[in-house]
Amino acid sequence: MTTRADGRALDQLRPVTIERGWSSQAEGSALISFGDTKVLCTASFTNGVPRWLAGQGKGWVTAEYAMLPRATNERSQRESIKGRVGGRTHEISRLIGRALRAVVDTKALGENTLVIDCDVLQADGGTRTASITGAYVALADAIEWGREKGFVAKKAQPLSDSIAAISVGIIDGTPMLDLPYVEDSRAETDMNIVMTGSGKFVEVQGTAEGAPFDKAELDQLLELGAKGCADLTVLQREALGR
Amino acid sequence: MTTRADGRALDQLRPVTIERGWSSQAEGSALISFGDTKVLCTASFTNGVPRWLAGQGKGWVTAEYAMLPRATNERSQRESIKGRVGGRTHEISRLIGRALRAVVDTKALGENTLVIDCDVLQADGGTRTASITGAYVALADAIEWGREKGFVAKKAQPLSDSIAAISVGIIDGTPMLDLPYVEDSRAETDMNIVMTGSGKFVEVQGTAEGAPFDKAELDQLLELGAKGCADLTVLQREALGR
Amino acid sequence: MTTRADGRALDQLRPVTIERGWSSQAEGSALISFGDTKVLCTASFTNGVPRWLAGQGKGWVTAEYAMLPRATNERSQRESIKGRVGGRTHEISRLIGRALRAVVDTKALGENTLVIDCDVLQADGGTRTASITGAYVALADAIEWGREKGFVAKKAQPLSDSIAAISVGIIDGTPMLDLPYVEDSRAETDMNIVMTGSGKFVEVQGTAEGAPFDKAELDQLLELGAKGCADLTVLQREALGR
Amino acid sequence: MTTRADGRALDQLRPVTIERGWSSQAEGSALISFGDTKVLCTASFTNGVPRWLAGQGKGWVTAEYAMLPRATNERSQRESIKGRVGGRTHEISRLIGRALRAVVDTKALGENTLVIDCDVLQADGGTRTASITGAYVALADAIEWGREKGFVAKKAQPLSDSIAAISVGIIDGTPMLDLPYVEDSRAETDMNIVMTGSGKFVEVQGTAEGAPFDKAELDQLLELGAKGCADLTVLQREALGR
Amino acid sequence: MTTRADGRALDQLRPVTIERGWSSQAEGSALISFGDTKVLCTASFTNGVPRWLAGQGKGWVTAEYAMLPRATNERSQRESIKGRVGGRTHEISRLIGRALRAVVDTKALGENTLVIDCDVLQADGGTRTASITGAYVALADAIEWGREKGFVAKKAQPLSDSIAAISVGIIDGTPMLDLPYVEDSRAETDMNIVMTGSGKFVEVQGTAEGAPFDKAELDQLLELGAKGCADLTVLQREALGR
Amino acid sequence: MTTRADGRALDQLRPVTIERGWSSQAEGSALISFGDTKVLCTASFTNGVPRWLAGQGKGWVTAEYAMLPRATNERSQRESIKGRVGGRTHEISRLIGRALRAVVDTKALGENTLVIDCDVLQADGGTRTASITGAYVALADAIEWGREKGFVAKKAQPLSDSIAAISVGIIDGTPMLDLPYVEDSRAETDMNIVMTGSGKFVEVQGTAEGAPFDKAELDQLLELGAKGCADLTVLQREALGR
Repeated sequence: MTTRADGRALDQLRPVTIERGWSSQAEGSALISFGDTKVLCTASFTNGVPRWLAGQGKGWVTAEYAMLPRATNERSQRESIKGRVGGRTHEISRLIGRALRAVVDTKALGENTLVIDCDVLQADGGTRTASITGAYVALADAIEWGREKGFVAKKAQPLSDSIAAISVGIIDGTPMLDLPYVEDSRAETDMNIVMTGSGKFVEVQGTAEGAPFDKAELDQLLELGAKGCADLTVLQREALGR
Repeated sequence: MTTRADGRALDQLRPVTIERGWSSQAEGSALISFGDTKVLCTASFTNGVPRWLAGQGKGWVTAEYAMLPRATNERSQRESIKGRVGGRTHEISRLIGRALRAVVDTKALGENTLVIDCDVLQADGGTRTASITGAYVALADAIEWGREKGFVAKKAQPLSDSIAAISVGIIDGTPMLDLPYVEDSRAETDMNIVMTGSGKFVEVQGTAEGAPFDKAELDQLLELGAKGCADLTVLQREALGR
Repeated sequence: MTTRADGRALDQLRPVTIERGWSSQAEGSALISFGDTKVLCTASFTNGVPRWLAGQGKGWVTAEYAMLPRATNERSQRESIKGRVGGRTHEISRLIGRALRAVVDTKALGENTLVIDCDVLQADGGTRTASITGAYVALADAIEWGREKGFVAKKAQPLSDSIAAISVGIIDGTPMLDLPYVEDSRAETDMNIVMTGSGKFVEVQGTAEGAPFDKAELDQLLELGAKGCADLTVLQREALGR
Repeated sequence: MTTRADGRALDQLRPVTIERGWSSQAEGSALISFGDTKVLCTASFTNGVPRWLAGQGKGWVTAEYAMLPRATNERSQRESIKGRVGGRTHEISRLIGRALRAVVDTKALGENTLVIDCDVLQADGGTRTASITGAYVALADAIEWGREKGFVAKKAQPLSDSIAAISVGIIDGTPMLDLPYVEDSRAETDMNIVMTGSGKFVEVQGTAEGAPFDKAELDQLLELGAKGCADLTVLQREALGR
Repeated sequence: MTTRADGRALDQLRPVTIERGWSSQAEGSALISFGDTKVLCTASFTNGVPRWLAGQGKGWVTAEYAMLPRATNERSQRESIKGRVGGRTHEISRLIGRALRAVVDTKALGENTLVIDCDVLQADGGTRTASITGAYVALADAIEWGREKGFVAKKAQPLSDSIAAISVGIIDGTPMLDLPYVEDSRAETDMNIVMTGSGKFVEVQGTAEGAPFDKAELDQLLELGAKGCADLTVLQREALGR
Repeated sequence: MTTRADGRALDQLRPVTIERGWSSQAEGSALISFGDTKVLCTASFTNGVPRWLAGQGKGWVTAEYAMLPRATNERSQRESIKGRVGGRTHEISRLIGRALRAVVDTKALGENTLVIDCDVLQADGGTRTASITGAYVALADAIEWGREKGFVAKKAQPLSDSIAAISVGIIDGTPMLDLPYVEDSRAETDMNIVMTGSGKFVEVQGTAEGAPFDKAELDQLLELGAKGCADLTVLQREALGR
């Protein structure tokens, strides 16, 4: 049987912690960790929407992802100093935004804007999936803040579901859940799966880093991912006290 | 039965044309069209590799994607004038590069660099999948150019397989192949599938734009995509005279 | 007698083709070729003018020029990736804009904006003169589109004349018309001439790349250029079916 | 007698905590808090120096400061997205670097580079002084790491002293130590003082935000600052276990 | 006794000239020289304020500092070509703006904007202090221009005081006034002092470039600076014909 | 007879002054004025050439043009702050560089680099022609500096001729020499002429701002320009003491 370096079962998450309300400044926040990966997620609530959306009775949710320069084992140059945001950063920011919007009913949100910032303080694989999972907690709290302030209608249900994400991959031919950097860098196939609390897919992104994969392998990965997302959904509910 | 606006069957590609060798300047090139989507793909062959790769006996393949400002129905501002490359552009450039590298044996390529440019001259949905499909033809010709010049070893097989891509989506609950803009903008789920000529997956990117999707829908989409990629593989072979 | 590499007479244009309406998206378009130089010109018509011009009853015409990275024999880096538009690009964009505005009566155009994009798909000398010549065709069609839509008054004459441009130069002491790259790179003097259909000058830009030139040489170049522009004027009329 | 909003004495620091070794990736690190201000300081040790310094037998120490977008009460735009680093960020980065270099003997450090990143996770006044104070702890640990790895000579003393910094200011005519945002924004005069562990000045930056100040006021501020830096020096020693 | 390279006493300014009204374009201007340092200061007066300040009955004063590429002994790259403004430029621009605002009563100024540009034509130490000193003269004239045009109320006193600045430093243990480059580059401690005409401090910025400094040294530097600012105040009054 | 606003004859230059050696920092310099237009030209001499030119025994001459923000009647934003160099700036920089290179024998110059900076301190039309005319004086002195230092061979003749430039234009149908802003802004045709001291053309740039122009008008403008350049050549010789 395959043993993982950290002794986990193939379908087991790393230790996950969610420190809800870590920030005293943001309307919603969570410091989430998937093992050594730590992401600070803050949700900023603003009454009103960007000009191009005004007057339609709908809200707006967007996200930005970034990594501190020394989150990783080798220091990388700041994107602010390079003067441009890299392709990877852009791509993950867009992914997080799409994932969150999939469970937001913008009509019910009303003309309010939520900006979710996911800043990776320490990186050890799975930063995008930890970001999505923590961002949901921050988002949920910021929406409740907006409700208390009267910006969101009392009986409105802006959140149609919860959302969580996890990585899966094939290493040495074996599908595994929640890859740390040491596994991720060796994976032949790497997949990120975003699912709702009710178990439907919102995003499936699989890439053959080495050998192409077939339908059977794809099915195994999807199953592992569904298990991981279900486990995260439980942890999110606990963090939110529901 | 569902009728599509352009009269196509649900599993039918739009008319595809591949003008191989369209450019008299590049080492390999193809002007590919998927219906009204037209992409000029050029492959630039350079003997030698970037400094960070030198001395390892391996080659390098990368890709850049861009759209002319009036490729679309409304003119968009040039990224050169904005002074930054947008997230979508970055994301697609990276996707094309990954797709091509999946069928390149960089050891067999030797210390040579291939840059594939995919410039969308006219856009009507499916620009990234047309880009990948056309890029493969340009790449194949540029590698043969390198062999003729003696930069690639006579018996080397730098291409382990061919690569093609297609979009699929669910519109009004019905899965369909190769979406033009009018369908794409209405799709509840949108998926891009990249496959090798031998029928294995290299990249699967599915996104719920509207309602989340379930495993059964995902399976239907994968099947349609496999059919489309197989059809494109035949057209690529014909274009390359094989 | 001097023989040119491609067998042309000294005052003879390269083969010129104008594919009017090449783009199905733009309000006016032309794919123009001067020998191996190919430029896609699109004209985008927008009802209304930039804020700084509003309320004066006048329209606005501007142009942008760019080259695909592999239009030339060696690939050049994209200006979008460099993050800045180069001096040469700026200079030619401004030249094309000035040339077009010289034949547009902005009062007759009314408060409408035309943006002409000239994207060089393949470059072999004379890209700026081909751009101006093709841009006029795209512009003329876009204005007619605006008339049909009711944005331009029925009897208005926004175009006071046609406009065309050609390069001339002195190679080994001999003045010649319409230089491809191989001649242009050897020219002692290089001149671009922009003229109206009625034979007047709009722009004369002559530069001594090698030895300075005298008045007699200048006069010869101007005469050759006038001949070339007159020939192009005929081709423009044919393309526009007039 | 003047009472401060948080009940502190005029010459009293806010609660200070220093979590040494917070990061598992960096060679030295500290999460420092001055009240609600929280800064993550990481020190990255690289053997070797930038090219312009090579071969002189001297090391290099530099620092970068930045704030997370939602560190403050209102979200600010990321500098990576603006495409440029703001004046305030630049100024503080330069200040931190100068402060650290004042206690580093670059000859004793040898040809090694230390980059200190100070990222403000939460801001409530005094972010630059907390950064300097925490950066010293991260720096000290990274130098010891370098010594253990053999990059720094066994008996070398790269640190000639410790360094700490604190803000002082005059509010309603009363000089006070360590201003949180609510005080800082009302201060007539605002001063940042950087001092060595042995009680000498490295940097004094005083600015009249309201009324200009006289020599007597300046002397009072300097005395308060000296007291605050001495208190921080004790805390730094404790954190470093000395 | 210490002799300075240029024969000056320790508390003596370099020859200072102020050519008031040097520019025929700006509303106020001065070409100021401190020895070989020459700075062109222009003040641009605009009726109205930036949008974020509108309707509050207050004016706005800001400053920008820059150096010509060959102001210094070695040519430096233009910041316009680098595409970003350097940290030092930002820092000095902010300093000049703060210094000027310290003597402007923005209520008395009314809703008017003053932009002061300080462009260093030649640099030999003390460019920021010469800039502040010259900027005051340009500012004073521009305010009078605004009064003549009726934009500033007849009896309003927008200037509460005058402002001047000078550098001081410790070289080989000896405090000195107004350092040219040759002294500045050797200084152990370097301080810039900004004072009002009535002798109060607006800004004190002292930095230990070499050994840290103590309170006694700081006091000596402040005294020298006060003397220098008083001398400059006299010269400003003469230049303004008061 | 046409009278000009400033009383000049149609073929008369504005008062021209050339302060040679204005800068104490640059190897060559001139502060040139054409009426109220004032340009500071500095020439920076560096032994050695850019890497791409090394080893060919040839030198390099390049130029950069810029305007101070308040050189003009209305303040314009700094290009360093915009983060990009405008089209006009680029175009004029390139023009100055080409003009100077036309009289430099780069073989005779040897492997040395000259960067000419032309910074417009005050603008009243003709800034590019004043720049070229002043730049030649700065260049000539910098080359002599290089000869004295032994970087340029004793008997080498790097300057094959002198170079000067002037603007001409047609206002109300009348051709005139050396247009100040008030004339330039009304000109129907605007032309810049760059000529060698021996009376040959290096650059001719004519643009119809209003009505297109014919050959007869062009000839008149060229004659006026030749007269103006000849007058400037005399002034350059006087400034250089020849």
